[in-house]
Amino acid sequence: MDELELIAELPRLLAGSSPRVARWMGDDAAVVRARGYAVTSVDTMVDGVHFRSGELSFEEIGHRALATALSDLAAMAAEPGEAYLALGLPPGSDRGGVESLLAGAQSLAATHGVAIAGGDITRAPVLIVSFTVVGWAEDPGELVGRDGARPGDLVGVTGTLGGSGAGLALIEGRARLADPAVAAALRERYARPQPRLAAGRALGAAGATAMVDLSDGLATDAAHVGRASGVTLELSLARLPLADGVREVAVQLGLEPGALAAGAGDDYELCVCVPPLGRSSIEAKLASTNDAVRITWIGRVLAGEPGARFTDARASLTGFEHSF
Amino acid sequence: MDELELIAELPRLLAGSSPRVARWMGDDAAVVRARGYAVTSVDTMVDGVHFRSGELSFEEIGHRALATALSDLAAMAAEPGEAYLALGLPPGSDRGGVESLLAGAQSLAATHGVAIAGGDITRAPVLIVSFTVVGWAEDPGELVGRDGARPGDLVGVTGTLGGSGAGLALIEGRARLADPAVAAALRERYARPQPRLAAGRALGAAGATAMVDLSDGLATDAAHVGRASGVTLELSLARLPLADGVREVAVQLGLEPGALAAGAGDDYELCVCVPPLGRSSIEAKLASTNDAVRITWIGRVLAGEPGARFTDARASLTGFEHSF
Repeated sequence: MDELELIAELPRLLAGSSPRVARWMGDDAAVVRARGYAVTSVDTMVDGVHFRSGELSFEEIGHRALATALSDLAAMAAEPGEAYLALGLPPGSDRGGVESLLAGAQSLAATHGVAIAGGDITRAPVLIVSFTVVGWAEDPGELVGRDGARPGDLVGVTGTLGGSGAGLALIEGRARLADPAVAAALRERYARPQPRLAAGRALGAAGATAMVDLSDGLATDAAHVGRASGVTLELSLARLPLADGVREVAVQLGLEPGALAAGAGDDYELCVCVPPLGRSSIEAKLASTNDAVRITWIGRVLAGEPGARFTDARASLTGFEHSF
Repeated sequence: MDELELIAELPRLLAGSSPRVARWMGDDAAVVRARGYAVTSVDTMVDGVHFRSGELSFEEIGHRALATALSDLAAMAAEPGEAYLALGLPPGSDRGGVESLLAGAQSLAATHGVAIAGGDITRAPVLIVSFTVVGWAEDPGELVGRDGARPGDLVGVTGTLGGSGAGLALIEGRARLADPAVAAALRERYARPQPRLAAGRALGAAGATAMVDLSDGLATDAAHVGRASGVTLELSLARLPLADGVREVAVQLGLEPGALAAGAGDDYELCVCVPPLGRSSIEAKLASTNDAVRITWIGRVLAGEPGARFTDARASLTGFEHSF
């Protein structure tokens, strides 16, 4: 494939123009009208490390890479703005596959009003998809970090957990389910995660004190919040909202369902701390967002050793952290 | 090497804090106070494609990756702000090497007042260093694109050309020079390019109509300006300002010196178009910038087929373009 030809096609493949974007592709850099504060995160997906190209379609690889990056903006309660793509293509990449990858990212971007405003295409030994995403806030007070949790806060998670880990087990043939619809939904959770952007902003506006997205698994990510805030997040595996089919897959894997849900990661739900009086207002606000996501209360914040612990876990559940 | 340990060390290795940076590492995203317009570019360096790790020190790899990204901001006349690093580490990466790489980038960042404000570290099959850089402008009118060149404009280049291509030939043993100081200076041009940030802003303030940085070589990059502006850049190989030693290396490679200077790329000088009346004011402004770079007038802008041509070239000089 000729990279020059592909680059010439990008304006057709990516709808990067938006009222904010003053200069798009074809120059040395993109130029975008700013708001008060830029919120920026980078997420890189490497074939063989973060996914296996044979297990996902190109369209899913493009969607998933952008979704995981946008999930960090959701966790900050930022309004999503632009995305910049660094794409590494291995020898023999075919143009149809690359176009599908871009279409997968572009479709998700359009759903959230994000402009893919620039980037870089290079040769690489394996497929590498890295997105730098930028969100905006008028005031840093609108944003939610990991460091604001206070003793007495409730801890909640959006949506359901374990679906992505169970989906990967199905994809890799380590488990199987009789119900094809449930199996397909779990696979989708792994292949096409949905960043909780509307829920993140609603939680920020409703007074969330700390928030993190669940990329490395609740056990790891909740511990980040606890350490950053100087508090203990005391959680219960039994209270975790499991995606349909997770229990059955966990049994086949020889795991407690809660342990799969807390340890597997890649669910891209939000874990949030809120003052206890805000509970009902938050439930109402979330129910009225676009994706009408539910929140489940899974524990509380205590003074104590900074980190997170499960009152009912039988073993360590920690995962692996990539971002800084 | 343990990525978690490395990430814990990052605040010591990277001085990402700046008065603009409200939230740095340790959260889901960096938060930076914006100015009117964000100017963003991505540049990725892959071992074996854009450099060979055995030919450069880790410190040089870090410097070079950030320099090439910042060079795009120079070409826009933007004020540099922040950088975000996506780092892919191959199996067996040792921590000392990674720390040197970060130190090389951090040192260049500090020189230009840039904060390395966040990023991502992952495993990868080979070393991959991708920087997303963000510059700022109060008004898009301060910035210089590739599309403003007009018939009658003069075409200039900053500094000297061919040094990086000649330096790589020396590194790879395809040529040798008797004078070790000249050889070392050429090697340095390849290993540690200097983004022309101050010169770029001075040229923008002095009325440059179009500008591009010379990453792919003058022949390729000037053609981008010609096509974007709908004009012909008519240039002369004989007028190109050659770095010391380029002539001698070119002879050993069997190339015309001008052809090496126009075709080899990686010099990261600026090619700029300016109205003819601005010539002396631009020379004076550039002489008073921090790096006191010289400008050499190498041709003029004509109405005609969009692109660039050399009046005295004997063969095609085009290179290869990666960015969009």
